[in-house]
Amino acid sequence: MIDARAGDAWRPVERVRAYQHVVDQVEEQILAGALKVGDRLPGERELSARLQVSRAAVREAMRTLEAQGVVRAGVGSGPDAGTVVSAMPSEALTRLLRVHVALANFPVGDVIEARITLERSSAALAAANATRAAMSAIAAPLAAMEALEGGVDEDRRSYNDLDTTFHIAIAEAGGNRLVADMTIAIREAMRQPILASLERLGDDWPAVRRRLSEEHRGVYEAIAAGDGAAAADLVEAHIRSAHARLDGDR
Amino acid sequence: MIDARAGDAWRPVERVRAYQHVVDQVEEQILAGALKVGDRLPGERELSARLQVSRAAVREAMRTLEAQGVVRAGVGSGPDAGTVVSAMPSEALTRLLRVHVALANFPVGDVIEARITLERSSAALAAANATRAAMSAIAAPLAAMEALEGGVDEDRRSYNDLDTTFHIAIAEAGGNRLVADMTIAIREAMRQPILASLERLGDDWPAVRRRLSEEHRGVYEAIAAGDGAAAADLVEAHIRSAHARLDGDR
Repeated sequence: MIDARAGDAWRPVERVRAYQHVVDQVEEQILAGALKVGDRLPGERELSARLQVSRAAVREAMRTLEAQGVVRAGVGSGPDAGTVVSAMPSEALTRLLRVHVALANFPVGDVIEARITLERSSAALAAANATRAAMSAIAAPLAAMEALEGGVDEDRRSYNDLDTTFHIAIAEAGGNRLVADMTIAIREAMRQPILASLERLGDDWPAVRRRLSEEHRGVYEAIAAGDGAAAADLVEAHIRSAHARLDGDR
Repeated sequence: MIDARAGDAWRPVERVRAYQHVVDQVEEQILAGALKVGDRLPGERELSARLQVSRAAVREAMRTLEAQGVVRAGVGSGPDAGTVVSAMPSEALTRLLRVHVALANFPVGDVIEARITLERSSAALAAANATRAAMSAIAAPLAAMEALEGGVDEDRRSYNDLDTTFHIAIAEAGGNRLVADMTIAIREAMRQPILASLERLGDDWPAVRRRLSEEHRGVYEAIAAGDGAAAADLVEAHIRSAHARLDGDR
């Protein structure tokens, strides 16, 4: 199955370039509208001949595209075999985006502003579009956070997880998948830095937690009342004041 | 170099699962803050032993992470060899995001709302932060679009490319890298559908082009005047009316 022998001496440089070239061409054809979801790519032998790269490079490109959720490997060996362009699941984008945010060393202020932009939009959309089920999904982590009041000091991680769930539920309730994907990715990328900030708070934690819960409750009520403008303003005020309180003493 | 022979019979299922498992663990450690930019991953042999997967699976995971811009392959074979966590370049995120938007079959209305959310933010940031050089980068495609007035009918592609450049320059001028990356990805994903819409316009094209240019000029002037609220409102009105004009007759 493996026929990369001829190029082995050059592998570290050449193969990377060659497979990237194949990935580029597939992506360009998708962006140009020439390849759509469900379309079948030419077989390994044909792509290798047309693009003048080794079959190993084609295989590697297909694995990369598969890992990104761009194609799905075919099964079988008949005329239906081959690799098919697939709709990238939201999960794939959210993962990549949150790893990117975690690694990219964006200034924290930039990430906060991006979060505010997206969460304002999510909150306003939720106020307009949330179903009864979506409202329950927002209410549940809110109630659970409130139930932690008076609990032991070790509940910071639980609080942070519930806080993440609350913000994600608002994004989902808005009903705009693309806005939700970006909102969720950024909130999830901040889960760890926010937890680190919570853990740096000493005796201030119970007071901060009370204040966060009041703000969450306010956002929830504006969404429940269908007041998109208020929901957007309240979620912005909440994100700004939360970061000021959490990061102020760094 | 290639030692996947033992697992060959199971390859289609087992190897995909195994390498994905390695990718997942690396991503989780990045999100947890345990792996940071510049950190070296354990070698292939050690990872293979620790994660109980084949060395081929580890190699495949490293190539996938490399293609995503998450790690950089090491060179040499001394103590400095190995794979290093790298800051994903903006380019990598923008590429993935725009392929995702192109493939994901989001309802067009959702993409337009996401675009409005991000471009309102970009325009307001540009009004606050644009340097003289950034203003020139916005002015250049604007002037070039205006110079196409009265040109031949075949300038729709050129117009669309300049239009893309104009919106990207505004995103760059805002100075928030994360907001800019997301704005650019969405605008670039729309390059092809917008061109298709422009090409569907028959004799209406000169009138539509004139109107688009007036709107672009208005956005530019609000940014130049430092009026962020006006710039945000004008860019929103422009995107809404452009899509209504372009997609209204579908």
